[in-house]
Amino acid sequence: MSKKPLILVTNDDGITAPGIRTLIEVMTTIGDVVVVAPDSPQSGMGHAITIDSTLHVEKVTIDNGPQEEYSCSGTPADCVKFGVKQLLNRRPDLCVSGINHGSNSSINVIYSGTMSAAIEAGVEGIPAIGFSLCDYKWSANFEACKAYVKSIAKNVLENGLDSGTVLNVNFPKLDKKHIKGIKICRQAKANWEEEFDKRTNPQGREYYWLTGKFVNLDYGEDTDEWALSNGFVSVVPIQFDLTAHHSIQELNTWKFEE
Amino acid sequence: MSKKPLILVTNDDGITAPGIRTLIEVMTTIGDVVVVAPDSPQSGMGHAITIDSTLHVEKVTIDNGPQEEYSCSGTPADCVKFGVKQLLNRRPDLCVSGINHGSNSSINVIYSGTMSAAIEAGVEGIPAIGFSLCDYKWSANFEACKAYVKSIAKNVLENGLDSGTVLNVNFPKLDKKHIKGIKICRQAKANWEEEFDKRTNPQGREYYWLTGKFVNLDYGEDTDEWALSNGFVSVVPIQFDLTAHHSIQELNTWKFEE
Repeated sequence: MSKKPLILVTNDDGITAPGIRTLIEVMTTIGDVVVVAPDSPQSGMGHAITIDSTLHVEKVTIDNGPQEEYSCSGTPADCVKFGVKQLLNRRPDLCVSGINHGSNSSINVIYSGTMSAAIEAGVEGIPAIGFSLCDYKWSANFEACKAYVKSIAKNVLENGLDSGTVLNVNFPKLDKKHIKGIKICRQAKANWEEEFDKRTNPQGREYYWLTGKFVNLDYGEDTDEWALSNGFVSVVPIQFDLTAHHSIQELNTWKFEE
Repeated sequence: MSKKPLILVTNDDGITAPGIRTLIEVMTTIGDVVVVAPDSPQSGMGHAITIDSTLHVEKVTIDNGPQEEYSCSGTPADCVKFGVKQLLNRRPDLCVSGINHGSNSSINVIYSGTMSAAIEAGVEGIPAIGFSLCDYKWSANFEACKAYVKSIAKNVLENGLDSGTVLNVNFPKLDKKHIKGIKICRQAKANWEEEFDKRTNPQGREYYWLTGKFVNLDYGEDTDEWALSNGFVSVVPIQFDLTAHHSIQELNTWKFEE
């Protein structure tokens, strides 16, 4: 019987994305790997789950690595649920998601399918990490991420994580020799300034594309945005108790007519 | 020029759902109302946004109320972005989402399209509230919610909310006379014990339905689950800074090989 840790791997860019192939390659050096990942890209899916339609799951072989792989018609969160509740006969020791093609730092965490998969595993009590590279391109170079991915995953396996906590790891788009190391950070206060690009289709019907630019409003040097723009890998511990505990006292002073 | 507050209304069950019709009816008694809501049900969409396909938005008339209404092909978060960034020529004073058909208490907040719309407004700096009734039925009775919805919305308009905070309001499935009042709460620690119901389609291909039961693991009397099962309306302040600040110190003791 294997003493190696059991590692569940997923992502939101789809099972053939270069980012997840890199993550699988690294994970097979430290554990037994089972992949359950979307059969097509799911970026921007947030924590969507499939409740009003059916799920299809197929066993697939994509490369000659030792991992077992399943392609799933659902969202990243569905993949984790399916892996943990249906497929695996023991609990994974770790769930990793990514490596995402594109940043999931600061407010992007709430839109991120990559991080939702990690959070879903966290809700199930499984130590979990989401990894993302600040490069949206399909041809992004994940080489510099490898040693950091391995080191962070090994730390989580050895030290565990606080209950109710998962890690959000982002890599700057830099060569290995230009990365200065790892920084533990808080989520920067940032948002998107969206614009809607209005167009007319060949049938004369109007439609819109969502576009926009990312705006960091937070100059703190303890944030993920600061770390990334100064050459560090950012690691933010993320929680899914969303209660704003500090607001409870104030709300208790409100008068409600009923 | 109107001195009434401008209120943006959305939901995740779709623009014709009885829950949003009730919410619109109440909001028109306290402000100028603009509705931007999905053209079809979007439950379980989490904080999904539409980035890889186009958005369609149509002006519609559904009843003879004074509100302006738009039906949108996107997700609840898309509806808020569209309302704030494209449609309205001044910032809304309040954004309300719901009334959802079904609970968004405890961990359900992370899967909820209703709450994601409210959170999206919060990220834009707009005071926001998500309302949900613990009754999944389309024929659910929203009558008992009305006075509470109005009172909570008026409080938010008058008192404001802490920056980075939105409200998650859930109603028990009870007649007005059995509701004991409002309780300010924290999010209960609970999760779903999922099962996958495996079936075979007429062509012989296997598929799955996600099913499961909700399990509350938290016996605290300050939680939303406690409030709801004891006849109270639960109000949880929700934040979208997901940083687990209490874990940062511990993570700084980890040794990373790089």
